Amino acid sequence: MLKATVTGRIWSTKKISEVPAGSILEVQIDDSNSRLLAFDPLGCGEGEKVMIATGSVAAAWFPGKSPPIDALIIGSIDEAATKK
Amino acid sequence: MLKATVTGRIWSTKKISEVPAGSILEVQIDDSNSRLLAFDPLGCGEGEKVMIATGSVAAAWFPGKSPPIDALIIGSIDEAATKK
Amino acid sequence: MLKATVTGRIWSTKKISEVPAGSILEVQIDDSNSRLLAFDPLGCGEGEKVMIATGSVAAAWFPGKSPPIDALIIGSIDEAATKK
Amino acid sequence: MLKATVTGRIWSTKKISEVPAGSILEVQIDDSNSRLLAFDPLGCGEGEKVMIATGSVAAAWFPGKSPPIDALIIGSIDEAATKK
Amino acid sequence: MLKATVTGRIWSTKKISEVPAGSILEVQIDDSNSRLLAFDPLGCGEGEKVMIATGSVAAAWFPGKSPPIDALIIGSIDEAATKK
Repeated sequence: MLKATVTGRIWSTKKISEVPAGSILEVQIDDSNSRLLAFDPLGCGEGEKVMIATGSVAAAWFPGKSPPIDALIIGSIDEAATKK
Repeated sequence: MLKATVTGRIWSTKKISEVPAGSILEVQIDDSNSRLLAFDPLGCGEGEKVMIATGSVAAAWFPGKSPPIDALIIGSIDEAATKK
Repeated sequence: MLKATVTGRIWSTKKISEVPAGSILEVQIDDSNSRLLAFDPLGCGEGEKVMIATGSVAAAWFPGKSPPIDALIIGSIDEAATKK
Repeated sequence: MLKATVTGRIWSTKKISEVPAGSILEVQIDDSNSRLLAFDPLGCGEGEKVMIATGSVAAAWFPGKSPPIDALIIGSIDEAATKK
Repeated sequence: MLKATVTGRIWSTKKISEVPAGSILEVQIDDSNSRLLAFDPLGCGEGEKVMIATGSVAAAWFPGKSPPIDALIIGSIDEAATKK
């Protein structure tokens, strides 16, 4: 998984119907210049540190037929306990 | 998913028959020098900001047997509401 | 697989229920600036050199329905015998 | 998919039996220093611009049991019509 | 696939039981600073140029239930015939 920080939210009106209802957040991968868009089932906020699972395992998390979603926030990282 | 900007369209006359009919666009990944070619089911235009799903989840979106397509535009990003 | 060094442990109280019980470690990929979070079934400690499998093969290792875990420590590397 | 240019051909006498008969070409990813080896079902030549699908979708293209092939040339790009 | 050069062998005493018996080699990706650990069914030696398949297609090559192996040497490259 990737450790990342939430930097914003994406809105999309024109999209394919298979994109699930819910939030898609923009995250910055820690110690990197890379950004990703990830589906957020947890209600994370800007600045929150999160764990991101990518690839087909993200899509497989959704019930029923897997949607075309390749990045999923699977948890929020408890800041105090993280050793850098 | 990746946030990208449409930069052009690719035409291919000599291709394998399993490539689905439709547009394949060239996109530039935001905050990166990387470019990808992505299948576009939405009719996006040059300069449009889009969300790209990659890997097997892109192929699995197509009805029937999955084609050898590993990048799919799943939505256009509403510019005004995007926080950078 | 990736060769990496364990650098810490991640704690997550707010997470999706499909994240399996167990340790998620932060690792630094050798000869790289990249870090990953990987599930650890072996009880590895900080500074330990490990092998990481990524992607759907990591998720498929778990019994039952595959969880949204895309990185798995599959072994600890015997230091003395490693040729660099 | 990746946009790439064919730079050569690879020959392999010592290989696992599941590698399909046919050409494996070396390609250079455009706007990048990365090279890949891709299976070529189209008879592409050196200098030709091609589209490459990677990952499990490349293997799934082959009839029968998927071979351990993770990159496939799916088309040749019509040069005149490409907008850079 | 990736073109790489074998640089050493990894030994692992403490590992999960699903890691198949056999060699795991360290390879350096050509024209890159990246290293990978790949399962070697061919008996390759240090300095040998090899083709590496990565991701789920590597795991799917193994008979029976796919192990958590995401990189596989599928062939040794005939040096004389390689055009750079």
